[in-house]
Amino acid sequence: MYTIWSDRLAPGARQMTSSAIRNMLQVTEQPAIISFAGGLPAPECFPTAALTTAAERVLVEQPLAALQYGPTEGYRPLRSLVASQMEQLGLAIPASQVLISSGSQQALDLLGKLFLDPQALVAVEEPTYLGALQAWRPYRPRFVTLPLDDEGLDVAELARRLANGLRPRFLYLVSCFQNPTGVTLSPQRRAALIELAAQYRLPIVEDDPYGALHYDGARPQPLAALDSARHGALRHVIYLGTFSKVLAPGLRVGWIAAPADLVPKLVQAKQGLDLHTSGLTQAIIMEACQHGLLEQHLPQLRSTYCTRRDAMLTALAQCMPAGTRWTQPAGGMFIWVTLSAHLNAATLLPAALEQQVAFVPGETFYANGGGMRTLRLNFTHATPEQITTGIARLGQTIAGSASIT
Amino acid sequence: MYTIWSDRLAPGARQMTSSAIRNMLQVTEQPAIISFAGGLPAPECFPTAALTTAAERVLVEQPLAALQYGPTEGYRPLRSLVASQMEQLGLAIPASQVLISSGSQQALDLLGKLFLDPQALVAVEEPTYLGALQAWRPYRPRFVTLPLDDEGLDVAELARRLANGLRPRFLYLVSCFQNPTGVTLSPQRRAALIELAAQYRLPIVEDDPYGALHYDGARPQPLAALDSARHGALRHVIYLGTFSKVLAPGLRVGWIAAPADLVPKLVQAKQGLDLHTSGLTQAIIMEACQHGLLEQHLPQLRSTYCTRRDAMLTALAQCMPAGTRWTQPAGGMFIWVTLSAHLNAATLLPAALEQQVAFVPGETFYANGGGMRTLRLNFTHATPEQITTGIARLGQTIAGSASIT
Repeated sequence: MYTIWSDRLAPGARQMTSSAIRNMLQVTEQPAIISFAGGLPAPECFPTAALTTAAERVLVEQPLAALQYGPTEGYRPLRSLVASQMEQLGLAIPASQVLISSGSQQALDLLGKLFLDPQALVAVEEPTYLGALQAWRPYRPRFVTLPLDDEGLDVAELARRLANGLRPRFLYLVSCFQNPTGVTLSPQRRAALIELAAQYRLPIVEDDPYGALHYDGARPQPLAALDSARHGALRHVIYLGTFSKVLAPGLRVGWIAAPADLVPKLVQAKQGLDLHTSGLTQAIIMEACQHGLLEQHLPQLRSTYCTRRDAMLTALAQCMPAGTRWTQPAGGMFIWVTLSAHLNAATLLPAALEQQVAFVPGETFYANGGGMRTLRLNFTHATPEQITTGIARLGQTIAGSASIT
Repeated sequence: MYTIWSDRLAPGARQMTSSAIRNMLQVTEQPAIISFAGGLPAPECFPTAALTTAAERVLVEQPLAALQYGPTEGYRPLRSLVASQMEQLGLAIPASQVLISSGSQQALDLLGKLFLDPQALVAVEEPTYLGALQAWRPYRPRFVTLPLDDEGLDVAELARRLANGLRPRFLYLVSCFQNPTGVTLSPQRRAALIELAAQYRLPIVEDDPYGALHYDGARPQPLAALDSARHGALRHVIYLGTFSKVLAPGLRVGWIAAPADLVPKLVQAKQGLDLHTSGLTQAIIMEACQHGLLEQHLPQLRSTYCTRRDAMLTALAQCMPAGTRWTQPAGGMFIWVTLSAHLNAATLLPAALEQQVAFVPGETFYANGGGMRTLRLNFTHATPEQITTGIARLGQTIAGSASIT
């Protein structure tokens, strides 16, 4: 790099790195490779026809909403729609507490801008969503990691840490079908966590991009709903939602449901980020949803993804060498694999790519290092046939590597 | 605010404020008010039909580009299109040095994230674009202000400051038809500035959202083109462009043309901000532009805006009290007014709103305070008839206020 610019990089910028996943996406674009690496929705499920109709209608009937500068808070009808969706999940909030973001990633950056500065403490699950780490690392916080298991975040351990004086700026967690592990915070732990929040005045950022993708039974109540019910208003929880997983990620539209008192600061911060999220994409989503798109589309999407999840679980049971463990997600997009003690997922990857199968080594999801035995598998993008073939290849790679060691 | 969250605000977030302009836009939405406040394009000029056709075509023919996760760098065909546009302006760069941003505002935030930390020095024009100040203030830099006149930035004064040891992280300027003043950096000063950049290794952020909106003669060569010509490659200048003013701001698509060595850092930073800009809006713009939309649309847009500028200049000459001065912009969207010495634009505003006419007091564009006598007028959003009426009202308000004082 010419030193003209690099001399002047801020400390937070010097330590930025590119996402291992986004880099790998370029490798795995080769059609011969069966990729379980990206967190990609199935493109054949995109509701293209409905979105096309909505785009036409919006541009003809509401060109101003789509094309002119719009409010930073978001397109008002879409905010109302989101508020009514949240009400169905048990969180009754006015549309004024819903802000539209340019995908959940922007919401994460926005929260970093508001709450993080060098050395600030952020509590995260171990492992946690890579994009949150990437959004926040430029603000140079310290991450405190909390363990999770098949019922999600270990809330008892959090309680011990809080009792011992831990006071993070906030706790961040993916509450349903977590990225990367696929586990879901149990109802008992949700209740306990909301009590802890009240006891310790603990702010919680609840990221819930996958909640609508439930394949075994009902969707759990969001932490935001429990917090609101306990206090009569949303108080401790900021809830992040997105249309990326239920409609299409290329639209880049998500939302933030926030305590009322925090809304002005969120709006001020978003003004500086991008003035507002595209009016066109917001209006298209609103137009499509008010004509019932989600109600038609979601059952079909869940069915497709459930079949793929089952195909992957079946293939894993058939193909993984003894000593390998994996999660049993009830929804979402990911299965988390833990290899035998002496194996390393990152060193396994080149061999897997040689066998034309890709995954993400788990260490990238560990805020403070570790997780060398783990890897993440996405089951929504590949077809069931590809999943069966790909997992067989992966099983052979792992078995081969195990026999060499 | 409940202290649960406000206790934890980062220092940069505490001092955030809302944009005076964005707040005023809500007041001036009342149809009776003739508003010269917002920097809004004329909505009747939006190329709605062409964008509708493009949206249909993109969603039918390239649903993946529009709807799936896409590259952080931007939609490749659009990057190539932008590179060819830049070449027409004299800057030959490969598409790999063009990154798509979610409007220019995001590019400003991105540069703040890369180059600013507390106490960092940023050199800006006085007055300067409010959105840049808003994007950067959360990073808590110090602003050094440089005067400008009818030929743009006072480059001789910059030379003196550099000679005296000024070493900012970068110099930020709007090089054509500046926001808020409407003035344009002269060719002589452009050449001198590029020499200074080479002599002092001065990084320059050239913001050029209005360059295509020239009404009197040709568009000046961007600083980026001069820098690239001098060094055989883009070295000192980062150039920011946008489709907001030439197509529609609601699409939220801009671009960054950057020195090659800086591209990886820009991409890493943008990953954390929003993963990527909406694929749908990028693909729509590409589809529309490759069918010649800009070539058809721009002459018409320039003609409409030129008429409005002339209407405002004529009305100002007829209606402003003696002692009032204003700029004569050769393009863009704004005229800058300086009132008589004893008048204050902010205190004048309530009286103006009572007369159903709105403007932005100039002080908001001063990074370090001042400018109480100045105000910004937008001439692109109101019709010529509204402009004539509105400026008459404004003239009466100013004259009335002057006689009271």
